Amino acid sequence: MSGILVKNVNVVTMQGHDRIISDAEIAIDKGKIIGVGPVGTVKPDFRPDRLIDGRGFVAMPGLINCHTHAAMTLLRGYADDLPLMHWLSEKIWPLEAKLEPGDIYWGSLLCCLEMIKSGTTTFADMYFHMPEVARAVEKSGIRACLSRGLIGVGPEAETALEQSKQFVQDWHGAANGRIITMLGPHAPYTCPPDYLKKVMALADQLAVGIHIHLAESKTEIEDITRDYNKSPVKLMLDTGVLERRVLAAHCVHLTDEDIDILAEKGVGVAHNPESNMKLASGIAPVYKMLKKGVKVGLGTDGAASNNNLDMIEEMRSASLLQKVACMDPVVLPSYETLKMATCGGAGILGLENEVGMLKEGMKADIILLNFHKPHLYPKHDLIAHMVYSAQSADVETVLIDGQVVMENRRVLTIDEEEVLSKVQEIAERLVGKK
Amino acid sequence: MSGILVKNVNVVTMQGHDRIISDAEIAIDKGKIIGVGPVGTVKPDFRPDRLIDGRGFVAMPGLINCHTHAAMTLLRGYADDLPLMHWLSEKIWPLEAKLEPGDIYWGSLLCCLEMIKSGTTTFADMYFHMPEVARAVEKSGIRACLSRGLIGVGPEAETALEQSKQFVQDWHGAANGRIITMLGPHAPYTCPPDYLKKVMALADQLAVGIHIHLAESKTEIEDITRDYNKSPVKLMLDTGVLERRVLAAHCVHLTDEDIDILAEKGVGVAHNPESNMKLASGIAPVYKMLKKGVKVGLGTDGAASNNNLDMIEEMRSASLLQKVACMDPVVLPSYETLKMATCGGAGILGLENEVGMLKEGMKADIILLNFHKPHLYPKHDLIAHMVYSAQSADVETVLIDGQVVMENRRVLTIDEEEVLSKVQEIAERLVGKK
Repeated sequence: MSGILVKNVNVVTMQGHDRIISDAEIAIDKGKIIGVGPVGTVKPDFRPDRLIDGRGFVAMPGLINCHTHAAMTLLRGYADDLPLMHWLSEKIWPLEAKLEPGDIYWGSLLCCLEMIKSGTTTFADMYFHMPEVARAVEKSGIRACLSRGLIGVGPEAETALEQSKQFVQDWHGAANGRIITMLGPHAPYTCPPDYLKKVMALADQLAVGIHIHLAESKTEIEDITRDYNKSPVKLMLDTGVLERRVLAAHCVHLTDEDIDILAEKGVGVAHNPESNMKLASGIAPVYKMLKKGVKVGLGTDGAASNNNLDMIEEMRSASLLQKVACMDPVVLPSYETLKMATCGGAGILGLENEVGMLKEGMKADIILLNFHKPHLYPKHDLIAHMVYSAQSADVETVLIDGQVVMENRRVLTIDEEEVLSKVQEIAERLVGKK
Repeated sequence: MSGILVKNVNVVTMQGHDRIISDAEIAIDKGKIIGVGPVGTVKPDFRPDRLIDGRGFVAMPGLINCHTHAAMTLLRGYADDLPLMHWLSEKIWPLEAKLEPGDIYWGSLLCCLEMIKSGTTTFADMYFHMPEVARAVEKSGIRACLSRGLIGVGPEAETALEQSKQFVQDWHGAANGRIITMLGPHAPYTCPPDYLKKVMALADQLAVGIHIHLAESKTEIEDITRDYNKSPVKLMLDTGVLERRVLAAHCVHLTDEDIDILAEKGVGVAHNPESNMKLASGIAPVYKMLKKGVKVGLGTDGAASNNNLDMIEEMRSASLLQKVACMDPVVLPSYETLKMATCGGAGILGLENEVGMLKEGMKADIILLNFHKPHLYPKHDLIAHMVYSAQSADVETVLIDGQVVMENRRVLTIDEEEVLSKVQEIAERLVGKK
């Protein structure tokens, strides 16, 4: 099956205006959008194999989660409400040390399942045993930008670089192009400049971008400033990292100069408001960044610090948090946040010509939300409803790369029961109940 | 039908400990819980009319929304992302001026519908045309504490007092005790001391509490300090208001002395994190208040400033916001927040012996959430999942006063289609599309 026609639907295209097209139609052929607009847009000779009735629904581009650690779903709820270093060293790291490649596969598949069910169609990941993540992405039908996490100060520094190279060679462009890759140096405090230089050389050789945690916590700022007498952003600039495509996660603690650098160098920032709140990292100056022209996308971070991968909830948190942080109810209005979660995210992953908008010629990553629900009535403003009132369970149908991967909330590519049972079994082994 | 037995369920009783009882049972008879605990708790001679299989579910006390304006659902998404005074004077007030009693009924019924569908079983309301709200509460089967809003500075000051008196006399204890009432002086800046004295006299005469907005915005603090040379909390203390049962909504801007006063006087605070974020009012010092012994419940505020009435989302926002505000990931852990949303809320409404816990002798206000969902796996910690991972669509069954009001997400007391169509019609009339 290839041709699909969605009819009678309210469409948010994200093509640079905040309007809803009512009673619209979307034609999809060979994985791409071949027409979107009011009734009459689609050529009358288009003969779809399949019709989707969108009455009562809102169609929009699939959500793009710009920063996560997929298999950390396995640690969801394992350790919460703890001081950061205690959480990491006593809880998260010891459990992660027990993770086998097979665990990563099932944990990542749970991530893909949860993401599809909450309307996410693309995610950017940084973790380890990445071929397992890629296999889960391939199977689930989702789109992803995958990076093997690199720690420059540990015993695996060189091996991880080798594995990264192999991973990029094996998987970049795989799954009909649904998988792209980046290199994943973990952070300035785990990857010193000498190591970053090796990462940059490899990135240039492979022609891929760099995914890094940056300026996440006050401790990072203090440590980097102590060791290098400059901010983490300035250190990345001086090391040359920012001359490449960079996906920088968090960017919570920034000076005005840092923000100027991020804007000038076209660095893509993945904003993770809920993780930053839950770990008490701080509040990223998103409004300021956007005003200065920094490219900002939205992410959930891993499920251990969120504790879900729900981008609709993340949009709401982003807007609400920024308003109270700036003490100004006007900042980050709903449409701006929707942009961060769609076309904004696509831009920072280098996918701006492929996904993030509903537009002729772009890939058909489309979600349909059922708006015939009490919490979405009356219908004063469907964009505001999407950000401030909707929940992920409102997403009923998901298309990725032109394929229907979820229909009436049933994911067609994954055996949900099998995944739930496997991850429970793995979790019990990890914590020693078995 | 009266006797109900819930079997094979994971139970969170909220009886002062953060444990889950697995494979538990709950017996309900004549609207009350007559037994709750591990298998074998319920007397073998109990013959229920009905069995509910709770396998895969978590049962807990229904959520208690301590502050809202029910019929403002009609304004959901009508005006967002605007400066506060512009939002109020250009958008909210002009539309509210058009509201007819029948509109309030349908808007309140939408509120009840949305609340039941998101696991709320009790709410505290302040609005106008309150008999219409009461009728909606009666019909829906929900429990509520209702207050007619009172503005002491306008032309309706005296009439509103009369109407309040009549309303309390007509409705306090109605609907099998599901409806209780309070008086609702709007706020210190709309109700001067002389008017508050009349309100207090009436409250004493009727033996009801007082529901008031308090210390919500910086402007309020500035205005009250300018006019009275003291904080709003201190003004309420000196006026004598705090000698009664007081439900104080917001309490965002407080001095240490204010917090001591709230604790000493046993004032119940309704914390509304999402509304405070969205309107950029500020962040209430919840951690500090709890540490000093202030009784704190949780609320959503009206749908115009939230924009939904989802208490599960509100719990998550409360915890996450407090952590980042205190820059400490330890504060407001999941169980503390769950308390605010259940027994804590019951306490501040004076319902601590009736609802907010699953306990023998208490009213059977119980919700069952389906935890067999990808975003709730693996099952490391069901309490953390409830606050940090769950969503309101996970609530499948709701009992209030021992009656099943929702089953498999279908609300049995309300014609959902009728409500959606009515509120849409009203909204279109209000904004002049009809």
